[in-house]
Amino acid sequence: MNNQTSNRPDPAAGTFYGIGVGPGDPELLTLKAVRILHHVDIVFAASSIKNSYSLAVEIARPHLSEAADIRLLSFQMSNRAEEKESLWAENADIILAELEAGRNAAFLTLGDPLTYSTCGYLMRLIAGKNPDIQICSRPGIPSFLAAAALLNQPLVEGDESLLISSGAPGGAELRKHGKGIPNVVMLKVYKHITDINQALIETGLMEGSRGVSRCGREGEEIIDNVVELENRKPDYWSLIIAKRQP
Amino acid sequence: MNNQTSNRPDPAAGTFYGIGVGPGDPELLTLKAVRILHHVDIVFAASSIKNSYSLAVEIARPHLSEAADIRLLSFQMSNRAEEKESLWAENADIILAELEAGRNAAFLTLGDPLTYSTCGYLMRLIAGKNPDIQICSRPGIPSFLAAAALLNQPLVEGDESLLISSGAPGGAELRKHGKGIPNVVMLKVYKHITDINQALIETGLMEGSRGVSRCGREGEEIIDNVVELENRKPDYWSLIIAKRQP
Repeated sequence: MNNQTSNRPDPAAGTFYGIGVGPGDPELLTLKAVRILHHVDIVFAASSIKNSYSLAVEIARPHLSEAADIRLLSFQMSNRAEEKESLWAENADIILAELEAGRNAAFLTLGDPLTYSTCGYLMRLIAGKNPDIQICSRPGIPSFLAAAALLNQPLVEGDESLLISSGAPGGAELRKHGKGIPNVVMLKVYKHITDINQALIETGLMEGSRGVSRCGREGEEIIDNVVELENRKPDYWSLIIAKRQP
Repeated sequence: MNNQTSNRPDPAAGTFYGIGVGPGDPELLTLKAVRILHHVDIVFAASSIKNSYSLAVEIARPHLSEAADIRLLSFQMSNRAEEKESLWAENADIILAELEAGRNAAFLTLGDPLTYSTCGYLMRLIAGKNPDIQICSRPGIPSFLAAAALLNQPLVEGDESLLISSGAPGGAELRKHGKGIPNVVMLKVYKHITDINQALIETGLMEGSRGVSRCGREGEEIIDNVVELENRKPDYWSLIIAKRQP
């Protein structure tokens, strides 16, 4: 069960762990994630440049000791690719310095570290800078599984297929890949809900669509009629689960 | 945060919990799943009719007390729909009798209870027989997330889409929905691997395909070249993760 990226890890260096903390409920961490959080030397997480808040840290908080060395890294969501990349490289350097000094470090990510997470970029950057660092990831519950549990509605059954798409660019991905598919998850529907709803209608999925906002957190909400989302600005943490009706 | 199915649950009846135990590693249970296993009166799980073994129980075993009341239900995989349905109905009755007697019951499922699980059928049957029973499900780590962590490879990033399909009927679902999609998970590839590999070639995904067998369990294996799976009978617990190469 060897899932390090390096074939010859540097025994003097620390290990990097990408840890999924789930979408909001601190009880949705796995036992493995909690154990790693207890034994690493440093816990890194992303924050916006404007504030020092990290939702991932808040979710993990009940499982961190008071003495835990928590370090927030700024990953400003910039549209300028260059600015973004240089910020990523800077943060990778900060983490790498600790790893090379022999300290084990966890990087917390919401949901799962390999599902629509920024953790993959970080892992590539660190591995690119020092291929002898041991890099691992530990799965977390993604938002759509917690949302399906909240709705108490099977996400996919039998021999059916499931499409998981990002709604960040609107309904384009759904139009491209959603024709005839029986089950769909649309993440990040906060920005282009009208176009996403239009795509749900075009692909015949509107009737079986339900929304979930802030799953497992304060203000959690089920939206039975996703058209209603057009009349307000949906919460940033909103997704739609669609099941084609017979 | 109310995810019961009933709007007026019978306060004298027990609650039914569909619990995901993850794909194999007992440390991949969530804290929530472990807590529920500690407080329910009965733990149900499926076994084949031929033996009294349940993989889900073995995964949960380290978290069950010695006094735990574990009950295996036979859900023989029959191809005859009638036989299957009558077995399901019988098992739902067994569970329902306990719930109606006021006992809380968990039903263990591998991975996640709402992702390719039989738990959904059970929940529908129980709700159909007694709509006043409180029915909940608690998410688990699905095999494909644990496999992605083992490969240390992002499953889906940025604004891309991900198709999750069953290989049980062969490559048909991939041919139908996989054209142009950048990321694919094919579950249950043990039976029709040659046809699945053919479909991976047809959809241009073969080059970026890797297999995982028995993720998180004894005999766990990464298969870097999935064509090799054709020269042996793949383990029942095998899946393929495909990433379209640029």
